[in-house]
Amino acid sequence: MKILITAFEPFGGDAINPTERLLMDIGKEPIEGAEIHTRLLPVVFDECADKLLETVAEIRPDAVICCGLASGRTSITPEQIAINLKEVPKESSVADNQGNRPYNERVNPEGPDGLFSLLPVRAMTDNMKEQGIPASISYSAGTFICNNTMYALLDHIRTNRLPMIGGFVHFPASTEMAASKPGLPSLSHDTMLNGLKIMIETIVKESFRD
Amino acid sequence: MKILITAFEPFGGDAINPTERLLMDIGKEPIEGAEIHTRLLPVVFDECADKLLETVAEIRPDAVICCGLASGRTSITPEQIAINLKEVPKESSVADNQGNRPYNERVNPEGPDGLFSLLPVRAMTDNMKEQGIPASISYSAGTFICNNTMYALLDHIRTNRLPMIGGFVHFPASTEMAASKPGLPSLSHDTMLNGLKIMIETIVKESFRD
Amino acid sequence: MKILITAFEPFGGDAINPTERLLMDIGKEPIEGAEIHTRLLPVVFDECADKLLETVAEIRPDAVICCGLASGRTSITPEQIAINLKEVPKESSVADNQGNRPYNERVNPEGPDGLFSLLPVRAMTDNMKEQGIPASISYSAGTFICNNTMYALLDHIRTNRLPMIGGFVHFPASTEMAASKPGLPSLSHDTMLNGLKIMIETIVKESFRD
Amino acid sequence: MKILITAFEPFGGDAINPTERLLMDIGKEPIEGAEIHTRLLPVVFDECADKLLETVAEIRPDAVICCGLASGRTSITPEQIAINLKEVPKESSVADNQGNRPYNERVNPEGPDGLFSLLPVRAMTDNMKEQGIPASISYSAGTFICNNTMYALLDHIRTNRLPMIGGFVHFPASTEMAASKPGLPSLSHDTMLNGLKIMIETIVKESFRD
Repeated sequence: MKILITAFEPFGGDAINPTERLLMDIGKEPIEGAEIHTRLLPVVFDECADKLLETVAEIRPDAVICCGLASGRTSITPEQIAINLKEVPKESSVADNQGNRPYNERVNPEGPDGLFSLLPVRAMTDNMKEQGIPASISYSAGTFICNNTMYALLDHIRTNRLPMIGGFVHFPASTEMAASKPGLPSLSHDTMLNGLKIMIETIVKESFRD
Repeated sequence: MKILITAFEPFGGDAINPTERLLMDIGKEPIEGAEIHTRLLPVVFDECADKLLETVAEIRPDAVICCGLASGRTSITPEQIAINLKEVPKESSVADNQGNRPYNERVNPEGPDGLFSLLPVRAMTDNMKEQGIPASISYSAGTFICNNTMYALLDHIRTNRLPMIGGFVHFPASTEMAASKPGLPSLSHDTMLNGLKIMIETIVKESFRD
Repeated sequence: MKILITAFEPFGGDAINPTERLLMDIGKEPIEGAEIHTRLLPVVFDECADKLLETVAEIRPDAVICCGLASGRTSITPEQIAINLKEVPKESSVADNQGNRPYNERVNPEGPDGLFSLLPVRAMTDNMKEQGIPASISYSAGTFICNNTMYALLDHIRTNRLPMIGGFVHFPASTEMAASKPGLPSLSHDTMLNGLKIMIETIVKESFRD
Repeated sequence: MKILITAFEPFGGDAINPTERLLMDIGKEPIEGAEIHTRLLPVVFDECADKLLETVAEIRPDAVICCGLASGRTSITPEQIAINLKEVPKESSVADNQGNRPYNERVNPEGPDGLFSLLPVRAMTDNMKEQGIPASISYSAGTFICNNTMYALLDHIRTNRLPMIGGFVHFPASTEMAASKPGLPSLSHDTMLNGLKIMIETIVKESFRD
């Protein structure tokens, strides 16, 4: 089956986004039953989603795993739900890579409040943990670019009744990032790459089971 | 306007639930424009919601603020969204007060994936902060009793097109609870009671503005 | 008995230091057996200690409780030990109020590596907890101004064999500070003031016991 | 130079102590200038130290690095100081592997309050960070077995004026441990093993510089 993996450009002054490194390495070794495509997305509200949906139209994947960084988390966290909200909390100093700071805006003014992931998040999480990789389901993808991307993807699949599944997975900081940010939890690139492989294998296996 | 405030029974071995103390004290001083009703809910899946909906039918409030404890949080957090999921993560040892540990179940198998709060969560949060009370919007009410209660309320209002608003607010541990649990963040009862008053005042003011 | 309470000026861009507010209020109500003196100390390496030792020479207290802010802590933490080190970790952006950032320097090049508090830290902590106030013993006062002050005081008492006791207590952020810093744990001013009174009462009681 | 590396047995119900795995692997590849000896220590108050001092007498190392687990930390943390205190806080449920829970006891009733590490902790930390490994100096080794071991070693070297250096390094949970404890920060075994090698190389290099 055709699987599209996306990741994000660096953001917030970091030289590298650990999900970009995952993207560079995930295709290096074949995964049985999976034809891997990759695409890097911009950290800009709405553009992130436009670029993803263009890629989906072009590649017509069977499954999409969008990967993003959630600095501060300790494990790999498949997201349960995307919400119809673009918001940078007032007290936060964060902005996207073009300086946008939306507040209380909808991703799709006509869309539902929330949309569940179409990926087998429980099997993905269980399989990673069984193989010694810290993983847990997350119930909030936040209200920034990652959630924007996930919501737009799920809303697009829903509206167009596309024969595909998709969702989002947040990764913690990489060990190399944490070396210059004391106190930041991290996982090594190898651990995260292994986790991503296990998630792809899970999707392949689950889809054959259906 | 008629405002229903709910709180929960003690849970998980604690002798008291700090939201129960809020319930006992919130009616002691009048709040202009608000007729306060209170109800304590059981920490049991589904029963929490049944009891709430009975009370709503009986009192016919204009607004409902459900209050719950989120041990570990540092501020008062109005919830943005409830999700259609009842789940105790496998690795957690938590159960409700009757020992239930649902996994990957829906609150309403026919309902939407997520439902946004109908309360003015941004104004409530801003007003608390302006008056020196730690507050922030939360984007996840979890998947336990609190989320169950919030989802059921919003789904009920939506399905029956009731002329009322409602939502959920999580409170941190109280200072007295934290005295026996070192490391647990807390707010004092007085601070939380003051926060609850400000939220009620905000709802009264916002509803007159409409 | 004569008890000297010290606190610090605001620091790091904050408008107020919550320990300064404690200092302003601690003398307002009499505490039996205690003659309270207060002094505000500068957040400047070495000057903090010089000013404290001058005050000690002038007032000749029986006990000194130095109070400081440890932003991020959740409870009132009497310190067990001061260490002979002035250090701002390289990755930290912190500096004292004159811009000093010492690294791997000694408070007293001739002094011992560490000096235990002379205050009854266990009784102080136990008494606060019994009265519902989050408290625990801390085993590190850090390597900044607070540790500098504590070490200098204990080293001075030791070297001059003064008939007095002394030590340091860290307080968390106040609730009003946390209102503008989401996620920061806090205790209310009233709770912290009550904690300080209990610590003073403990010192009075313990000293009569001897 | 002869370098003794110690680690601890499993503890607190865990099947493995990640420092034990470091011990098993550290000798597998030669490190230039270092003759590595290893020893596993019991997680029992006082016995941990007795066993270490016996091993020191037997091997007569030039340097000792004691390794221990600090579950919850995010980076490799060389300890600055050991303190003359054995204490399990009352609210903790922890005990050593023989059920001991000392409270406010001294490691050496005649010893100084604190003893600084004799290892080049700043160079060790800097070198790890330069090579992409999360590391920072810790200013508290706690009051449990690890601190007990470190204090006893430093006190022994001091009292007997031994021509050797020594100290303690805390490691975070390993990634495999964290797989079954969601939320626990971790580093991979490979990252930690690499960190330990860098610390040994630093000690070899620094000792030749003298």
